[in-house]
Amino acid sequence: MASNNNLAPYICIILSILICITPNNIFCHAAKTSGYTRSTNASADMPAEAFPAPPGFNAPEQVHITQGDCGGRGVIISWVTPYKNDYASIVRYWKACDPKHVFKARSRVYTYSYYNYTSGFIHHATIHKLEHDTKYIYELGHGDSIRQFSFTTPPKPGPNVPYTFGIMGDLGQTYASNSTLGHYMANKKGQAVLFVGDLSYADNWPLHDQRKWDTWGRFTENSAAYQAWIWTAGNHELDVAPEINEYVPFKAYKHRYHVPYKSSGSTSPLWYSIKRGPAHIIVLSSYSAFTKYTAQYNWLEAELKKVNRHETPWLIVMMHAPLYNSDNYHYMEGESMRVIFEPWFVQHKVDLVLAGHVHAYERSVSPRLNYTIVCSISCAKLLSYRQTERISNIQYNITNGQCTPIKDQNAPVYLTVGDGGNIEGLANNFIEPQPSYSAYREASFGHAVLEIKNQTHAFYTWHRNQDHEAVAADSTWFYNRFWFPKDESSL
Amino acid sequence: MASNNNLAPYICIILSILICITPNNIFCHAAKTSGYTRSTNASADMPAEAFPAPPGFNAPEQVHITQGDCGGRGVIISWVTPYKNDYASIVRYWKACDPKHVFKARSRVYTYSYYNYTSGFIHHATIHKLEHDTKYIYELGHGDSIRQFSFTTPPKPGPNVPYTFGIMGDLGQTYASNSTLGHYMANKKGQAVLFVGDLSYADNWPLHDQRKWDTWGRFTENSAAYQAWIWTAGNHELDVAPEINEYVPFKAYKHRYHVPYKSSGSTSPLWYSIKRGPAHIIVLSSYSAFTKYTAQYNWLEAELKKVNRHETPWLIVMMHAPLYNSDNYHYMEGESMRVIFEPWFVQHKVDLVLAGHVHAYERSVSPRLNYTIVCSISCAKLLSYRQTERISNIQYNITNGQCTPIKDQNAPVYLTVGDGGNIEGLANNFIEPQPSYSAYREASFGHAVLEIKNQTHAFYTWHRNQDHEAVAADSTWFYNRFWFPKDESSL
Ligand SMILES: [Fe+2]
Ligand SMILES: [Fe+2]
Repeated sequence: MASNNNLAPYICIILSILICITPNNIFCHAAKTSGYTRSTNASADMPAEAFPAPPGFNAPEQVHITQGDCGGRGVIISWVTPYKNDYASIVRYWKACDPKHVFKARSRVYTYSYYNYTSGFIHHATIHKLEHDTKYIYELGHGDSIRQFSFTTPPKPGPNVPYTFGIMGDLGQTYASNSTLGHYMANKKGQAVLFVGDLSYADNWPLHDQRKWDTWGRFTENSAAYQAWIWTAGNHELDVAPEINEYVPFKAYKHRYHVPYKSSGSTSPLWYSIKRGPAHIIVLSSYSAFTKYTAQYNWLEAELKKVNRHETPWLIVMMHAPLYNSDNYHYMEGESMRVIFEPWFVQHKVDLVLAGHVHAYERSVSPRLNYTIVCSISCAKLLSYRQTERISNIQYNITNGQCTPIKDQNAPVYLTVGDGGNIEGLANNFIEPQPSYSAYREASFGHAVLEIKNQTHAFYTWHRNQDHEAVAADSTWFYNRFWFPKDESSL
Repeated sequence: MASNNNLAPYICIILSILICITPNNIFCHAAKTSGYTRSTNASADMPAEAFPAPPGFNAPEQVHITQGDCGGRGVIISWVTPYKNDYASIVRYWKACDPKHVFKARSRVYTYSYYNYTSGFIHHATIHKLEHDTKYIYELGHGDSIRQFSFTTPPKPGPNVPYTFGIMGDLGQTYASNSTLGHYMANKKGQAVLFVGDLSYADNWPLHDQRKWDTWGRFTENSAAYQAWIWTAGNHELDVAPEINEYVPFKAYKHRYHVPYKSSGSTSPLWYSIKRGPAHIIVLSSYSAFTKYTAQYNWLEAELKKVNRHETPWLIVMMHAPLYNSDNYHYMEGESMRVIFEPWFVQHKVDLVLAGHVHAYERSVSPRLNYTIVCSISCAKLLSYRQTERISNIQYNITNGQCTPIKDQNAPVYLTVGDGGNIEGLANNFIEPQPSYSAYREASFGHAVLEIKNQTHAFYTWHRNQDHEAVAADSTWFYNRFWFPKDESSL
């Protein structure tokens, strides 16, 4: 006689077949390496004509916003104009519910040269003392070039403030990139984007064609002008080309994408933190010095001690190169940082470590199938579903042989969301057998959404571009390490 | 009946007792952790009065030289003057054997400010196209402040060019530092110094008292004005102090100690290479970015491929933080670099990896006692002598559990010579039991000497300050990895 347990797969298959008829609002906890077959021929950049400059004299373009202070009452509004004049530098803004009280702010203006390219005038205006959780309208330009946008400030940081983040990385400006961004924007839940690095891929072009930065700014404006994108620098932001005497790392990135690093005591825009709603978000630089005694190390050590989980229960760390990755592409490139920072992440009970770089999707923890466990596409995979626990690998001391990841309830979940679209194709060469630290991996383009519900629970979904946006190819609940340090795989 | 083997210790003891009567010219392959008792109260800085400025108006001071090009026909002569004028910027030089032909070179002049300090005028004059293996006299200053020095250029790089390097690190300007430098200078063999970082320890003083850089320059002039010191930056060169708005890393170091980094295609003075006599010497920065895609990583990858062991048989890598260290002080601080660069060092058969940072002395490989094996001080240690083989630890792939150092004949010897004198005291807290990668370790101040004899053999000695210079507390032969890849422990 079959036990209950042995019957489960059959019940599941039957359920799946039934439910797959209505693919929306249902989720599949796919197991191991997803066998989903995806197109790889979407990796060509869209032509420049796809990203025309806006009409009108000296029209502001490439508009994007990010958080402008530590707690969310500030916004940095950035844009580019072909010429410099007084009109071009002004942003007018007002509360959507109070259009009669218009405020003004003036940008600081930057330009940079790179080989044979000279940038337009890059404006950054930091606005302070906005009200929390409030919709603002803002306006740039003059005369026939006026452009209007809006954003909503995040709620005051607090323990039970729901907030939803999109997660994207390695976006580029290919047809796949366009699909990813379109999918993300079609999902109306996302209130801000956690971007894990590799923006324009300008450096993949001859002479690091800086015009690709301009087209990328136009491409992403549809989202980035309306909600804060929280920036992380990737390797493609290094943008160094000794062969054409371009030695300054992060030149375009630093000029074009400002972040509020000083408000967290950082001395570099490449590492900083913000508090946004229920989350304390720490951004690190995989491509700057981070060993002991360096500025990044010292800053992170101090920063982690400052995190107040009573104010911001969710602690999220972002970087470009993943610390855990099971793709042969970029395998172990995060080791240098892992060996030095992973003990801190465990000690401080970091909830999520987000990375990109690998042009695929991967997640380290799989809960038990205890929520609405149904299936959209890869139903059969339920059969090979496995629960994967939080792990750490911090016991190694050179001589003790203890270098295998082990179960650790204080460890973060590792997410690699480097599947934005890039220009180099997908990283579909996974290591077999799938390591213990890998719960789900798939070489498809897509993005993720993190819905923080309260101080204990967050619902997380990953969306592949081939599906309708509402379909989650991968989804799970994450439990807060500080307030609800339960094993996702045992509840 | 005792076998031959069992008799060996007794024979050794008798031999030792006999030979210890004449301590000079004899060497002891001490085993494991040396129990030599050393004074630890020598770690106070000498007073500023110990380092007076030279007499005369605008007298050049803090004179030091380093190699000025890739192959050894260039020299960078550096000095400081209180004022700036035409006289102060000129160096006159001539071959010692041809004093009638006087050449002139003009310095580039730099100053820097640091909090409430403004430097003197720091001169760097690069002289090119000198003859190899030739003694030159050079003269700085004017009128009653003229000062004369000399140096000998290295022989043309070649496979069988003997050359002797001193090795010092973490020198500082304490009484112990003075003893170390005095011991090194008393040994007339050293033709150039490989300095593994941590120079003045100015940053240990309130407000990072930059006058300590001046006194250090005066202190080391006795040697550094006469032979090239090959510089490596240590953590004390970072010299960053956010609390007084000093954010620029390596500010004093970069202004005061120029190196010929451009001639090796480097884009930063913090990593570079030179060829000097029989050695290709690569200098790395433990405190700059070095992960994949960064400038240091790209440079090192290309640099290792350029090494021509037919021209320079000995390949030496210098850095500040050791990759192998068995002292609890700074334990595993080199891991971030080890996990990324050790495979390259093994692949390219690096002969020696030199580091400092740990304020003690350590060596990773012990040959068999096959040369003139006699004993100076710690005779009894022969009883616990152990042969220690070259090891590597490069098989680890996260999941295979292979993280224990294993025998590897392609691996370099690791030397930690961070025992120059510093200001923080000795690091006398060794990990027990002594790991397999540690052959000899001792928390005493001292320096080392590497006598490259030919393309296959180099004789290496370490000298503790308490001994007469001619005594080598530790000594061994090293065999070239490219030309004579034999196991030192089996010959
Ligand atoms: Fe990347
Ligand atoms: Fe150090």
